[in-house]
Amino acid sequence: MTPMTPPPAATGGPHVDGQRLWASLMALAEIGATPKGGVCRLALTELDRQARSLVKQWAQEAGCTLRVDAIGNLFMRREGQMPGLPGLPAVGTGSHIDTQPTGGKFDGNYGVLAGLEVLRTLNDHGIRTRAPLELCVWTNEEGSRFVPVMMGSGVHAGAFTLEHALNATDRAGTSVREALAAIGDAGAAPASVAEGAPRFGAYFEAHIEQGPVLEDSGDVIGVVTGALGQRWYDVELTGLEAHAGPTPMDLRRDALQAALPLMQAVDTIARAEAPHARGTVGYVQVFPNSRNTIPGRVSFTVDFRHTDEAGLTRMDAALREAISAVQDAGRVAVQLTPVVHFPPAPFDATLVGRIREAAARRGLSHRSIVSGAGHDAVYVARTAPTAMIFVPCKDGISHNEVEDARPEHLAAGCQVLLEAMLQTAGVAG
Amino acid sequence: MTPMTPPPAATGGPHVDGQRLWASLMALAEIGATPKGGVCRLALTELDRQARSLVKQWAQEAGCTLRVDAIGNLFMRREGQMPGLPGLPAVGTGSHIDTQPTGGKFDGNYGVLAGLEVLRTLNDHGIRTRAPLELCVWTNEEGSRFVPVMMGSGVHAGAFTLEHALNATDRAGTSVREALAAIGDAGAAPASVAEGAPRFGAYFEAHIEQGPVLEDSGDVIGVVTGALGQRWYDVELTGLEAHAGPTPMDLRRDALQAALPLMQAVDTIARAEAPHARGTVGYVQVFPNSRNTIPGRVSFTVDFRHTDEAGLTRMDAALREAISAVQDAGRVAVQLTPVVHFPPAPFDATLVGRIREAAARRGLSHRSIVSGAGHDAVYVARTAPTAMIFVPCKDGISHNEVEDARPEHLAAGCQVLLEAMLQTAGVAG
Repeated sequence: MTPMTPPPAATGGPHVDGQRLWASLMALAEIGATPKGGVCRLALTELDRQARSLVKQWAQEAGCTLRVDAIGNLFMRREGQMPGLPGLPAVGTGSHIDTQPTGGKFDGNYGVLAGLEVLRTLNDHGIRTRAPLELCVWTNEEGSRFVPVMMGSGVHAGAFTLEHALNATDRAGTSVREALAAIGDAGAAPASVAEGAPRFGAYFEAHIEQGPVLEDSGDVIGVVTGALGQRWYDVELTGLEAHAGPTPMDLRRDALQAALPLMQAVDTIARAEAPHARGTVGYVQVFPNSRNTIPGRVSFTVDFRHTDEAGLTRMDAALREAISAVQDAGRVAVQLTPVVHFPPAPFDATLVGRIREAAARRGLSHRSIVSGAGHDAVYVARTAPTAMIFVPCKDGISHNEVEDARPEHLAAGCQVLLEAMLQTAGVAG
Repeated sequence: MTPMTPPPAATGGPHVDGQRLWASLMALAEIGATPKGGVCRLALTELDRQARSLVKQWAQEAGCTLRVDAIGNLFMRREGQMPGLPGLPAVGTGSHIDTQPTGGKFDGNYGVLAGLEVLRTLNDHGIRTRAPLELCVWTNEEGSRFVPVMMGSGVHAGAFTLEHALNATDRAGTSVREALAAIGDAGAAPASVAEGAPRFGAYFEAHIEQGPVLEDSGDVIGVVTGALGQRWYDVELTGLEAHAGPTPMDLRRDALQAALPLMQAVDTIARAEAPHARGTVGYVQVFPNSRNTIPGRVSFTVDFRHTDEAGLTRMDAALREAISAVQDAGRVAVQLTPVVHFPPAPFDATLVGRIREAAARRGLSHRSIVSGAGHDAVYVARTAPTAMIFVPCKDGISHNEVEDARPEHLAAGCQVLLEAMLQTAGVAG
């Protein structure tokens, strides 16, 4: 479905080594490799330690110095024009290397190793930047073992406190504090920008799309203009449980039948805000969930996303209106509980423009896209100008062992990252 | 909500003793009583043995002889005009005394003890019937411990074989055969009519309604004209599991959204066949059932009931049509699996008429009603003329520890049972 793209080698300037990038991805994927071809490498486990160790080693071989902060975020620094002296803030890039329990080889790992490939390419060409560059590995992006998700970047940006993150425990009762100590990455550097962690001059993150848009449109580069805002809810309907046989239709207080138009409304409301809104009912629980009993209670979740806050507000109002209609019918009670509210995060227009220009310069087919999922960059954007680059992934599938991406697409995204970073950091005279 | 009814004592003939009936119900309810006022007395347990033993003792005290068949059904016989000689087939009545795990005092127990009260009343008045009377306790009606449900009456009627029933096991691996032996009710009498079990001349069963119809209309006696036929299905929809954030609405293959109109159709189809059709989705399972994942697979059940087979056929066709519309949209595959097909069971018009006449004679407000649930009488109806009497239960609630019924309603139903049985069995000259 995705057309072959022209190789970027036709134009001037340094070029990333797509084969080296691919080889690094495959090497890192061996740590926690699953029989189905995926990766299981939960945050702050021994496998995560091994992976962090490999990335540190590669960065060291590339001439970087390492800084580890108090939440275990790794910053591998390639000095700029005036090493060791106060000067321009660093231009950062990176992502995460923890995975879902049945995760893939590319989610997160691509962003880190694309950043590494940028540093290696600069070394190959002896290019020194004016601003320093920092390659970041953010702790526990996935949230599979510890919540909150996007923990390292969240602490960095002050979305929640370091203490809150350190006290989080996994199902076995191990805290983040203990797990960090066990892998030796409880660093001394301050973790939060508010408490002295350096603020980036700019931050870029390359990532597989984790969705079907690029594959569907046949584009190679997604120029990410921002991340959708999110409003999540729990909805519970209470009717009256009763025997399916003896209870005539007009005497029922069926919580499921009352829930159906609300679940449909979640979809309809999002379609009315096309193309950048999403509305999903992902979770449904029916009580007592017995074949011949009329449901007395139904719980379901609502996940609304939108590019702008006014859109989220309209979606919220439409949902409440649909609920009122069910309430007014009087047979079933409905409870709506807001759970999460992330504001939309538009990315920095200048950086977004540089990504678009780099793609155009290299003749790479590209389109604007919004990030529907959360990423470390969404938190970093609260503290620094930020942008993201997406590349297609096979069938839009991620968080899955079959997650796949094409080497030439990964190389193309890396090349765009290189050029956008170079333009932002500047080349030393 | 239910108006007081005139006591039946105003007219002639024998009258049941409502207080004695109530006292027997309360005494039986002590065996397996739960703290919340219900009963937990699963089939063929030690508690069931104790309850069977008490009913046997009461029937013996009322002058009955006991026959136990090979599936543990109890038949307590009060001889007719020519005891011990071949003659008229027995007029049977009864129900079951096993309960749901969180069952009530009346479901089943009322039918058995109303029958006992009929025998006691005849004794009080020295009335001998022409045909013999038999009080039945059917084994394992509820099916909570062993399936199939309505096991004793099902074997009697040949719905399935004795061997099939005896080999059924509970979760602990105990078979019906072993459990029957353990409580001493593995009888010698043939269980199935096809293998020589006596066929009733007529069979009556009194039961609480287990639904809200009588309470809603303010009637005391439900003249049950038959039992609804049932068609049960499993429906499974397969779409594509995907991230809720990155996947735009128009690229989704959301199995839940595709399922919603089908679940609504189940309700709509039943309402189009008002008033005696039912359509219920009682069970829903969503995969992976995660808040921010578009459902890739949804399973749900369909329970259709109707008074006549042509109606069930229309409902089946309408469901298949609704499924075709979803299939034709092409984004989600739908699999429909029929699970159960019970034909409708109209009761015997003559016996139904006798119940209606008895209620009218006693000035009891009454209405025709259909049984939406299964009962032992529905199986017995395959072998003999059969009818049922319903009385109201509080809020229509059954299979619940709060199940409740009013003594005067229970007595009224018992009086109607007495008169219908007397008219059917005839009074010896």
